Amino acid sequence: MPSAEVPDIVVGRLPIYLRALAFMAAAGQEITSSHELGQKLGISSAQIRKDLSHFGEFGKQGTGYRISHLQEQIKRILKVSQEWEVALIGIGDLGHAVARYNGFKNRGFHIALLFDNDPAKIGTRLGDLEVLDAARLKETLAERQIKIVMIATPAGDAQSVADTCIEAGVKAILNYAPISLTAPEGVRVQHLDPVAYLQWMTYYL
Amino acid sequence: MPSAEVPDIVVGRLPIYLRALAFMAAAGQEITSSHELGQKLGISSAQIRKDLSHFGEFGKQGTGYRISHLQEQIKRILKVSQEWEVALIGIGDLGHAVARYNGFKNRGFHIALLFDNDPAKIGTRLGDLEVLDAARLKETLAERQIKIVMIATPAGDAQSVADTCIEAGVKAILNYAPISLTAPEGVRVQHLDPVAYLQWMTYYL
Repeated sequence: MPSAEVPDIVVGRLPIYLRALAFMAAAGQEITSSHELGQKLGISSAQIRKDLSHFGEFGKQGTGYRISHLQEQIKRILKVSQEWEVALIGIGDLGHAVARYNGFKNRGFHIALLFDNDPAKIGTRLGDLEVLDAARLKETLAERQIKIVMIATPAGDAQSVADTCIEAGVKAILNYAPISLTAPEGVRVQHLDPVAYLQWMTYYL
Repeated sequence: MPSAEVPDIVVGRLPIYLRALAFMAAAGQEITSSHELGQKLGISSAQIRKDLSHFGEFGKQGTGYRISHLQEQIKRILKVSQEWEVALIGIGDLGHAVARYNGFKNRGFHIALLFDNDPAKIGTRLGDLEVLDAARLKETLAERQIKIVMIATPAGDAQSVADTCIEAGVKAILNYAPISLTAPEGVRVQHLDPVAYLQWMTYYL
């Protein structure tokens, strides 16, 4: 792993910074500061400066950050200057919603493959894509050299689907199923967990 | 706000600790350590001890944490020892998936109300609940004293729905729509953003 010395939680904050910068840019703003970013995100400005200092110098003391430049640099660090092909497995309600989610655009990802194991769904189309047979998941992911998948299957299927993806060479799994997935070293798993966000907010109620 | 001196990012890590503890407990484990928790989560053990020290003493030096005790204490801190009634607005694909998500159970939340503005959906049932008319959102939330909502409407409707909820007394909004919501001071908004998780993982690819 490159830059193994950067703490993982610091890496995890970069996408949050990037999202806040994108909102500012969309509103026409050109310059920001660690102070302003921090206020928007509930993070101290010192923490933001310290996080960014792991990766270089992005602004001058007293003049703040040029938003477009900082966006480019963070995209480069996170390797999302390019677009990654992502496979989505499980085309139920949630899978449908994920496939149609228009928040992926211009943020480094493109859903390129859909899979399900339900004969009633296989061969149907969702937008530009055909739902493929999950029986051919491993071969198809390997052929297309897919490194990133999103799993939106029922909880009971999620681990075996993850195992198959990993055998095919997948290195990053975003898990929507309400279950903890295990993966060998070298494979990252993130759990999209709405309850963690709800619990974060109830603290303040 | 109570304990305003605890940094918000520390509060945000407590649900992650709680989730990891629940997984350990479900596997029959009784004791853990900041070292083990840290390894599972990619956070340093010093950070975990420091985070927890904001709230008191939860383990003895050298003997680790009793998992059930630490779970109870974190639940108390996050105010999820009780169950909160949550309203879900927007019963499209995503709303359906959220309504059926069985990851809320025993974690402090209970979906109590569903709303949509589509006449074809209003009055239909989803599980135990009837889909209510979003035209009566404000009155119903106020009557039921709902403090927490999840918004799964199209992006274009999300801000006006949020505004209505806030007028009704809602203090915590989990936003599934791919748009940044603004809210006045005293109202928390969290954005469930799959791309932030994907970008966190591509760093390591």
